[in-house]
Amino acid sequence: MAISMYQSSIPVLVRMLGNLSAILTKAEAYAQAKKIEPRVLIEGRLSPDMFPLARQVQIATDMAKGCGARLAGVDLPKYEDNEATFDELQARLAKTIAFLNSLRPEQIDGSEDRDITIPMGNNPPLQLKGLNYLLYWVQPNFYFHVTTAYAILRHNGLEIGKMDYLGPR
Amino acid sequence: MAISMYQSSIPVLVRMLGNLSAILTKAEAYAQAKKIEPRVLIEGRLSPDMFPLARQVQIATDMAKGCGARLAGVDLPKYEDNEATFDELQARLAKTIAFLNSLRPEQIDGSEDRDITIPMGNNPPLQLKGLNYLLYWVQPNFYFHVTTAYAILRHNGLEIGKMDYLGPR
Repeated sequence: MAISMYQSSIPVLVRMLGNLSAILTKAEAYAQAKKIEPRVLIEGRLSPDMFPLARQVQIATDMAKGCGARLAGVDLPKYEDNEATFDELQARLAKTIAFLNSLRPEQIDGSEDRDITIPMGNNPPLQLKGLNYLLYWVQPNFYFHVTTAYAILRHNGLEIGKMDYLGPR
Repeated sequence: MAISMYQSSIPVLVRMLGNLSAILTKAEAYAQAKKIEPRVLIEGRLSPDMFPLARQVQIATDMAKGCGARLAGVDLPKYEDNEATFDELQARLAKTIAFLNSLRPEQIDGSEDRDITIPMGNNPPLQLKGLNYLLYWVQPNFYFHVTTAYAILRHNGLEIGKMDYLGPR
């Protein structure tokens, strides 16, 4: 077994996005069964000044597509960021997974030394080497937003457990 | 730059545990300033059947020390799991960071092929190679519990932001 940039990024992101998709499927079924308006969950938050569920899914997918595109040195897929239903969030997850799966290991491997620049709005851009971008930016941010999506749904009564988050063995 | 098991694990875990320690320092100051009993935060949960803050910190540190010990092939440090105050949680974070920092890169590098066995209570143990243990067990679990600790405090009114979680640039 080797340890490579591809292995450490793309299959892991794909797996976690698939787990998130399965969690959203359960959330939609829960809303239907309990006659909860889907937007109650989609707009659910843990604190008034934290992002709602939809935005958590958007940022998780942003981190994933950003990782794939920047490490491979290809154009960043642009999304509208207007998802407001479970179907739309599922479509966003599906297109992100398809994009990641379109990247070949040879496009990603060797990217540990690539110079990565991340725009930071009004602040100076963040400049990192590929490996540090993956370890200190993508991974903590990606897991933060996937976990927060999970936590919002759990807080709103959805019966899911750690195995939904980790995915089937 | 190389990509190695050490680089992908120990310094990342140390950094995130340091960030969590700084967040708990802010939480303690917040409790003091607002005259909130510290245990209200330490026992805070996002859902009645989710673990409270103290347990989130315990599991995050378990994941970190487990990672270091198993990849290096050294004895797993045993903790009592009885932390009930901010000082005790900080001591747990500090001893975990010290343990991780005691591991040398040459003890961890090359562990991608090591056979790792994780006891799973009454279920059959999880058996993984070192790299998959890091990528599919340690990382998602570790970030899950650090993020949930953050989310519990955020949900309880502590004014922290993503930069507290990610740490200083």
